[in-house]
Amino acid sequence: MTERSPSPAGVAAAAKRVAPHVTRTPLLPLDRGSERVWVKAECLQQGGSFKLRGAFNRLLQMSEEERARGVVAFSSGNHAQGVAIAARRLGIAATIVMPSDAPAVKRDSTLAAGAEIVAYDRMTESREAIGARLAAEKGCVLVPSFDDVDVIEGQGSAGVEIAEQMGGEPDKVLVPCGGGGLSAGIALALPGAHIVTVEPEGWDDMARSIQAGEPVPVLEPAPPTLCDALQTKLVSPLTLGALLQAGAEGVWVTEGEIERAMAFAARTLRIVAEPGGAVALAAFLAGKAGAVGDRTVIVVSGGNVDPAAYAAILARQAAADRFP
Amino acid sequence: MTERSPSPAGVAAAAKRVAPHVTRTPLLPLDRGSERVWVKAECLQQGGSFKLRGAFNRLLQMSEEERARGVVAFSSGNHAQGVAIAARRLGIAATIVMPSDAPAVKRDSTLAAGAEIVAYDRMTESREAIGARLAAEKGCVLVPSFDDVDVIEGQGSAGVEIAEQMGGEPDKVLVPCGGGGLSAGIALALPGAHIVTVEPEGWDDMARSIQAGEPVPVLEPAPPTLCDALQTKLVSPLTLGALLQAGAEGVWVTEGEIERAMAFAARTLRIVAEPGGAVALAAFLAGKAGAVGDRTVIVVSGGNVDPAAYAAILARQAAADRFP
Repeated sequence: MTERSPSPAGVAAAAKRVAPHVTRTPLLPLDRGSERVWVKAECLQQGGSFKLRGAFNRLLQMSEEERARGVVAFSSGNHAQGVAIAARRLGIAATIVMPSDAPAVKRDSTLAAGAEIVAYDRMTESREAIGARLAAEKGCVLVPSFDDVDVIEGQGSAGVEIAEQMGGEPDKVLVPCGGGGLSAGIALALPGAHIVTVEPEGWDDMARSIQAGEPVPVLEPAPPTLCDALQTKLVSPLTLGALLQAGAEGVWVTEGEIERAMAFAARTLRIVAEPGGAVALAAFLAGKAGAVGDRTVIVVSGGNVDPAAYAAILARQAAADRFP
Repeated sequence: MTERSPSPAGVAAAAKRVAPHVTRTPLLPLDRGSERVWVKAECLQQGGSFKLRGAFNRLLQMSEEERARGVVAFSSGNHAQGVAIAARRLGIAATIVMPSDAPAVKRDSTLAAGAEIVAYDRMTESREAIGARLAAEKGCVLVPSFDDVDVIEGQGSAGVEIAEQMGGEPDKVLVPCGGGGLSAGIALALPGAHIVTVEPEGWDDMARSIQAGEPVPVLEPAPPTLCDALQTKLVSPLTLGALLQAGAEGVWVTEGEIERAMAFAARTLRIVAEPGGAVALAAFLAGKAGAVGDRTVIVVSGGNVDPAAYAAILARQAAADRFP
């Protein structure tokens, strides 16, 4: 971690740095009647989420000495995959601290990417403490999932691509928000756009932190949510700061709205969105994002969902569509 | 229809002509162990398949007088959507002759695109006769789904994009094949690539036609297949000619291989592939496409699948993966 704050210049540099290593994900048109908006399909990123961007931006700036000692990351899954893939490509050893109830698809993919997994109990153990202990024991670099300047700036490369693909800045961007790394990075990349962070119901700590002007934790007990990728209980001053500076607003969506958005994504966009990846699309479909138009971008941030759970959600939604 | 044969120059011109109207679909990396191949995700095309390319290339070349009389097309669904969307964008009336058992998702999308649908019974009626009668009655232009120079050249724009995205021609391209419009167009776009057409078991008339050197119909009775988009009983001299000229080969895959490929596409690439769209990926996964490498491209040609049927396939495959 560095002392400085994430900046537009840092995002621009990150975008150049990571471009050779990440997929330039498509900006897909989404037509509803005569209305057209755009979907940035980050679920098509390698590893299945935007997380590869921040991971590469962090790892590419490590010294040779640091690279030799390896990296450690704690993650519910998507960040794990991002770090594991980037580390393997750069020949760096990676240890991932992952909750024992993480989706099998995420565990398997992290293992397949060559990382070592250390499991912990989400209810009784602190992943931060485990991650820090491992970092201390092995002398390796801890790569935070969002509370890090380089990681935030790396995620912002998605915003740089959006501006390039649209030939200019969008007016509005709806972004799924856990710790806020992606939304903060995009806010820095697109200073002219209105940023709307979207969270699951009961996990809207970013929305409430934006309103309060300081980090406000999730209200306990937080309800169950399908969005394993967005279960962040406290945002970072770094991400919140960038979003406050940008004048962002936060909204939330229900679990039902999220399931419908996942089915809509499969049927209409032909992309697989995981629950946490579909929240911004859910906000759009539920009309919770205010005025939208052909300069509006909806980010679908990830597509790593347990195959059986995904099939069940699509089956429920297909039945609901068919027999209304 | 014109008298000439489809040509590389025609494909190049078509690619320029349709570029402002179609989505430049991504070329996604697919890593298996240390092996990397590429997937051209044409299921992310507007309308959910490559068909928009040929439709635009044909419709954009109609005279004002022809446009005023409208267009008619017969299609199991994807061509219908391509023609309907292109027609609406250009302000042309479209009538679609569609089998009564076409997937609801395709009927709905065609209606949503503003086309008129005329249904027919696949078992007792000839869609060609109905389409020709409608064209004669209304004086409008019939847009064939593959047996047309402009349509074939338009589909070839996908191949032009592949070469641009790879910075050169691939060595090998695996392409789903019904009537052969897409594979012929890609063969013309990429003369240096080895083209492998892929069909469902029992519907491998292109493979047998290539071997025979002339159009050979499907052997009756043809078995049931999930691939509604590939149930073409006789290929066209235009498409076969281009594929023979290119030295293409044809392979086939089983229904089980197709289902597995659909689940693989969702899980690993996060794209929705319809059965017919997944056959080339199925051939790759089943090792039926010979040597592959980082200059191999697999085309996923469409993603329009009935939501309930899709959910059922993913559920079956998830269960099979979990309890092998």
